[in-house]
Amino acid sequence: MKRINLAHGDGGELTQQLIHDVFVKEFGHEQHAVMDAAAVSLNCQDISVSTDSFVVNPLFFPGGNIGKLAVSGTVNDLAVSGAVPKFLTVSFIIEEGFLISDLKMIVGAMAEEAKKADVQIVSGDTKVVEKNSADGLYINTTGIGMLSNKQCVNPNTIQEGDVIIVSGSIGDHGIAILAARNELGLITNIQSDCASLNHMTNAVFNAAHSVRIMRDPTRGGLATTLVEICEDFQVTMEIEESALPIHHEVRGACDILGFEPLYLANEGKIIMICAKEEEHMILDILRNFHEGQEAQVIGYVTKKEKGQLLLKTPLGSTRRLNRLSGMMLPRIC
Amino acid sequence: MKRINLAHGDGGELTQQLIHDVFVKEFGHEQHAVMDAAAVSLNCQDISVSTDSFVVNPLFFPGGNIGKLAVSGTVNDLAVSGAVPKFLTVSFIIEEGFLISDLKMIVGAMAEEAKKADVQIVSGDTKVVEKNSADGLYINTTGIGMLSNKQCVNPNTIQEGDVIIVSGSIGDHGIAILAARNELGLITNIQSDCASLNHMTNAVFNAAHSVRIMRDPTRGGLATTLVEICEDFQVTMEIEESALPIHHEVRGACDILGFEPLYLANEGKIIMICAKEEEHMILDILRNFHEGQEAQVIGYVTKKEKGQLLLKTPLGSTRRLNRLSGMMLPRIC
Repeated sequence: MKRINLAHGDGGELTQQLIHDVFVKEFGHEQHAVMDAAAVSLNCQDISVSTDSFVVNPLFFPGGNIGKLAVSGTVNDLAVSGAVPKFLTVSFIIEEGFLISDLKMIVGAMAEEAKKADVQIVSGDTKVVEKNSADGLYINTTGIGMLSNKQCVNPNTIQEGDVIIVSGSIGDHGIAILAARNELGLITNIQSDCASLNHMTNAVFNAAHSVRIMRDPTRGGLATTLVEICEDFQVTMEIEESALPIHHEVRGACDILGFEPLYLANEGKIIMICAKEEEHMILDILRNFHEGQEAQVIGYVTKKEKGQLLLKTPLGSTRRLNRLSGMMLPRIC
Repeated sequence: MKRINLAHGDGGELTQQLIHDVFVKEFGHEQHAVMDAAAVSLNCQDISVSTDSFVVNPLFFPGGNIGKLAVSGTVNDLAVSGAVPKFLTVSFIIEEGFLISDLKMIVGAMAEEAKKADVQIVSGDTKVVEKNSADGLYINTTGIGMLSNKQCVNPNTIQEGDVIIVSGSIGDHGIAILAARNELGLITNIQSDCASLNHMTNAVFNAAHSVRIMRDPTRGGLATTLVEICEDFQVTMEIEESALPIHHEVRGACDILGFEPLYLANEGKIIMICAKEEEHMILDILRNFHEGQEAQVIGYVTKKEKGQLLLKTPLGSTRRLNRLSGMMLPRIC
């Protein structure tokens, strides 16, 4: 009898397989089940809807807590879909014995992040389960955003020569969580990048005309996100290892622990593909935001076929990257 | 140091207190935090939004499973707010080791119930947590519905003489869950009433003009739901014990176990307050639906003041009912 294992939740190959075998089969929406945010039409208003449950461990980590993450995570899913996030619902599953003072701190962080992101929390729910039936606290947030014509993305227009931009350093969230778990005796000053990016994405969408697709490389990391795009739209992309913005300490921790920054979760980064002509304009916009200061072009679309992600190493060789396979870091978000 | 206990999740007094002390304080929306569904405006379209996390134990019970409940529960929250449910998001927190065959059965029930209710599942998420960090499976559903002018409720128009209608027998879900837990050696044939009621509420809203308020008496039961209405809108209502539709077996189980059917959860019932003139018309509509066959008038609004719920016993005496206080049945939904 087949059972769920932790790798079913890490955003990599097994997650994909579970989505296809169970959810797509029953719910029948291939695209909706795979994409984070779904575009739907309500009367004449096009909206974007996204849901996420947060089970991050530990609940408090350098740079944020589960509350901040739960708000910014859903805000970002809406934002990269081209929507202006408007409303959030919040739902709590709390383990018996949880400190009310901790709950207040987490809810306070949610309120603060919602204010920053300019979204309204409109509906809520609280459930309590017995000791050992949860690990402290889980939060679901579901968001609704408005899609305007101006802010449309169309991945089918991806072309040879398009550039791949990342809004900043990768792997910070993954390493911050690892460090907070204290399991590995790792001491770093790395903070999670956890932040709402909708004001930044909004600025890009308002100025640029060639954004083909935008995504937030969370579970599974930058590599998995790019592989998904390559496969979904049958394009080949090449990224340069030397161009990847990676903080010194993240690189060091990865070297010691045997992790690959390309597969570490990010919670405050976007990647996008756009026309070469708009590269500088978009980089300027991103770098004007605190969260986008380290934005970089990291590669190019090289072919409109095959659906492969290639990594060019500093030595000049090229290797193919696949999605995250097997369990890396459970409960990262 | 104050800690969360199970009664914080039972929908009664402590839940109310937690909402006020933590959520309303931070999120600042008294009405939104208390009501299940929130009405918001998106451009010019008025929509209703509702979220619920389901932690029912056991996952499978007579009359349904957590999947069916998760769909119908959110559909009903939207329906009683006067909305036509359109879209649902679904999010799963799965314990490591959970049987994939069970997951398929549950997801299948969700797809079936969504089809019945005519709602579209548009976005999803899956998280996996370690053994003993959840109890099998938790599901969040968040729903979006359309509010039309036709289907408006206005509790501020509640008047003396208005009638209180319940759409059928109370307490079935609570007793079905208890029986399924098998903890009490209780054998009954009671099935949970778990069902989507949006087609029925739609029919009522389309025909009636005097629906002041509609609610689904879930956690906390009929009594808690009515007490909330009495307090929120400062009206006094009197219900007649002898008029309450209660299945024989539910009454029997309650007698043995010392439970009060008025406080047991329902998952396929609505209560509403409407003008006396429309009483028969609305009862006819309800009774035309399988889920509303046992609809009854159970009482009246007696005063536009004080905010009390009174129960008239068969012996002619009257006692005041309060909301559910202290833990009754945890993880009923």
